Amino acid sequence: MKTFLTQDHWSNLGAYLKETQILGSIQSTLYWDQNTGMPKKGASWRSEQLTYLAKILHERNSSEEFLNLIKAAQNELFFSENSESKETINSKKKNIDLLIKEFNRQKDLDPNLVELIAKAKSKGYESWQEAKKKSDFKIFLPYFENIIKLRIEESKQISDNLKSWETLAQPFEPDLTLSWLNNIFQPLKENIPLLIKDLTNVDKQKWDLSPQSQQKLCTKLLDEFGRDQDMVVVSKSPHPFSITLGPNDYRITTRIVEGEPFSSFLATAHEWGHSIYEQGLPSQTHQWFSWPLGQATSMSIHESQSLFWENRIVKSKSFSKRFYKHFVSEGCSLSNDIEFWKSINHLKVGLNRVEADELTYGLHILIRTELEIDLIEGNLKAKDIPSEWNKRYEQLLGIKPSNDAEGCLQDVHWSEGAFGYFPSYLLGHIISAQISYQMEKEIGSLENLIENGEYKKIILWLKNNIHNYGRSLNSMDLVRKVTGQDLTSDYFLTHLRSKINDFC
Amino acid sequence: MKTFLTQDHWSNLGAYLKETQILGSIQSTLYWDQNTGMPKKGASWRSEQLTYLAKILHERNSSEEFLNLIKAAQNELFFSENSESKETINSKKKNIDLLIKEFNRQKDLDPNLVELIAKAKSKGYESWQEAKKKSDFKIFLPYFENIIKLRIEESKQISDNLKSWETLAQPFEPDLTLSWLNNIFQPLKENIPLLIKDLTNVDKQKWDLSPQSQQKLCTKLLDEFGRDQDMVVVSKSPHPFSITLGPNDYRITTRIVEGEPFSSFLATAHEWGHSIYEQGLPSQTHQWFSWPLGQATSMSIHESQSLFWENRIVKSKSFSKRFYKHFVSEGCSLSNDIEFWKSINHLKVGLNRVEADELTYGLHILIRTELEIDLIEGNLKAKDIPSEWNKRYEQLLGIKPSNDAEGCLQDVHWSEGAFGYFPSYLLGHIISAQISYQMEKEIGSLENLIENGEYKKIILWLKNNIHNYGRSLNSMDLVRKVTGQDLTSDYFLTHLRSKINDFC
Repeated sequence: MKTFLTQDHWSNLGAYLKETQILGSIQSTLYWDQNTGMPKKGASWRSEQLTYLAKILHERNSSEEFLNLIKAAQNELFFSENSESKETINSKKKNIDLLIKEFNRQKDLDPNLVELIAKAKSKGYESWQEAKKKSDFKIFLPYFENIIKLRIEESKQISDNLKSWETLAQPFEPDLTLSWLNNIFQPLKENIPLLIKDLTNVDKQKWDLSPQSQQKLCTKLLDEFGRDQDMVVVSKSPHPFSITLGPNDYRITTRIVEGEPFSSFLATAHEWGHSIYEQGLPSQTHQWFSWPLGQATSMSIHESQSLFWENRIVKSKSFSKRFYKHFVSEGCSLSNDIEFWKSINHLKVGLNRVEADELTYGLHILIRTELEIDLIEGNLKAKDIPSEWNKRYEQLLGIKPSNDAEGCLQDVHWSEGAFGYFPSYLLGHIISAQISYQMEKEIGSLENLIENGEYKKIILWLKNNIHNYGRSLNSMDLVRKVTGQDLTSDYFLTHLRSKINDFC
Repeated sequence: MKTFLTQDHWSNLGAYLKETQILGSIQSTLYWDQNTGMPKKGASWRSEQLTYLAKILHERNSSEEFLNLIKAAQNELFFSENSESKETINSKKKNIDLLIKEFNRQKDLDPNLVELIAKAKSKGYESWQEAKKKSDFKIFLPYFENIIKLRIEESKQISDNLKSWETLAQPFEPDLTLSWLNNIFQPLKENIPLLIKDLTNVDKQKWDLSPQSQQKLCTKLLDEFGRDQDMVVVSKSPHPFSITLGPNDYRITTRIVEGEPFSSFLATAHEWGHSIYEQGLPSQTHQWFSWPLGQATSMSIHESQSLFWENRIVKSKSFSKRFYKHFVSEGCSLSNDIEFWKSINHLKVGLNRVEADELTYGLHILIRTELEIDLIEGNLKAKDIPSEWNKRYEQLLGIKPSNDAEGCLQDVHWSEGAFGYFPSYLLGHIISAQISYQMEKEIGSLENLIENGEYKKIILWLKNNIHNYGRSLNSMDLVRKVTGQDLTSDYFLTHLRSKINDFC
């Protein structure tokens, strides 16, 4: 009878998690609709819906009932060590550990604060949109101050031994510390400004494609990568993103930027990378859907996957050779695939993070990361963001925004209170470089694989070496496991140097 | 202090209803996404989400807590009769009456049955899609039988004094009885088959427009009607529909049908009619959002509004004169606005309800209504639907479907267990005719108003005479109030005779 009882507590916990997942995925669906379909005036009611869901999700995730279910399952696990395989037991233990960790983050939070934060996010997002449109930081400032205050309060209520910013960064990058991050980023802060000195800073050749042509090319790209149309849907939104709405329901968005004929194409490749990671998570192949192990381990790993498809695949020379002709049939005026490669890889200092090249991208992130750490740790006031932003752009990139819209208001993240997210992008670049090096050692050069259209082989390698692990390893352990080495910025710097060599 | 206490119970009930409304509107958002964006393989998880929401909504709507809130508010109202205006008290009383009526419908329902029905709807819809695609009723039959069985069980649990079919029809048409319905429909059953004998039955002139052109014309139509783009969004779905997702968030869908250049255009007008009704409900102008009085009174009134815009506006001669030129610029080959009017009003017996003209439409409904009454009342077996369907089409319309896809599988309604909905369409035609007659008496001929583009005047009349009442009057009372007369099919028959005169 033991086994039967054993099954029972575990299943009860599983049923509880499934309901939580149902609510979470409903939240995601509302978010998707908000960004792809909702009319403007729907915003205020949508905010009421999201606030309500945030409240009941918090209640579920911090309830006595949930804690008892976890404890009962943990206890049951303790007595079933001999009746299941070591691997299963370990996975189950890891799941319990992650659930307890997450529960402890939630348990001390005041539900009122949770509700206030949800509302502040909505208001922050709304006011940021208006402020950006009018290029006026002052419109956003009071809402920004409010969300900073609330999130600092949140970090104090979670009250672990970390600094406030570290606490807020944990959901994006579990186990991250400021000193670890500083060690990884420092070489880039020193080296990238030297590298950009080599750039001739020539303007890109001006050309463009119609929205219809761009859409066709994006569809062609996803077909080339092997998208399952019955599982992955593409739409448009002001900011490209990727989201999973159910075990077999993946959504991607892109956007058309006038005068940037590669923008929607590269965004599609980027979001595909996010999506294919989610598609490869163990939730798809065994019992871990709605359990922690079925989830992505961190945003830096997530970004490593998206940046891999954007930069290692689409910006490769072989890819230019394969795809140049399709651009030509849509009216691209570049004279050959080498010009095409140069255009898609164009290196030039600019003000915009999203449209930045691989080389200067890191500087955009370093500035944001330092600013938000200062904000949260109390060394910088929100009202001083525009001037500090401009100052640091001048220092690191040698250029200065002419207004807030192209400066400190360009990104959505802070408006939704997402502090601790930005470093993920740069960590993603670094991880992608280190992983790519290992991949090439194991299955041959990427240029060759792409030349032969062997995307399936690439996806399989990523699935087996990265995606399949879910949250069983954190980023640091996963990188060590796959590459046999701690994370280092060396591979990324090597890659940047070789790109400059080819480009200049 | 009395007043303060008074306010309190009423506000508590309001807060409860608002949470219910939040959940209901989330359900609607999932439904919208399911039909406009969701990839095919997302269906099974979506069904889990919808089942979960149906369960908690049922719990809320049948809970002891809810009943106590209603009773407390009712009691409070009793003691506050002198402190508020008579109009406010009456509205509040009506709200309480409707809440109690709805509560009584829910209270005896077994929650397991509610969950089973939600699942059966999903499965029914899925199997119907496949069955229709393969034109094979047998694929759908077991799921159809299951949903019929479950809904009959539901009607028995609700256990009022009505027949099962009447009970199921109440949510669509409150206070409807079979004998009342029969009185209204009988003259049509006798007269329409005589009227269609006059048709020459000439085929429509064949022409078509590109999907892009159709889309442009639909947008132009909505602009002409005065749509607020920040509030009303249009998308595509296999079946056109209109849905309200929040107090300022309205959605409409249409679809392109090859070889039917007016299909998307007429569907857009139709769905606009539904939407403008919802936009005019009192929920928008005072406190009744999330209260019964802020809702549409019945589906027949709803259909009267959509059919009004489709048939009285877009199929009028003045409208043809105004819009013919826009169709010409998109490539329409009809030689003048009279040909255009003839084409959009083409009268011809056919097998398809949605594409049917005003004259034969009623026969499609009469057949469906009689069949589903027989099904629910136990006089017809589900397995016999295809043969019965074909038999009655031959009797009433003189034509017979060559397969189930163009026969009994053409409509989605039964697959989702929506019995009692079909008569709303025909009642809508009848109500629209009677209301139009009254409108013309009050603000002048529709042909003149349309000729001058006075849509605002029309909308205002509809808002003041129909929309603004919400659920304070049922269909029968509303028609009597607006037209000074009980509902009768006379006006509709007169309209049909005049249309035939003009057409033939």
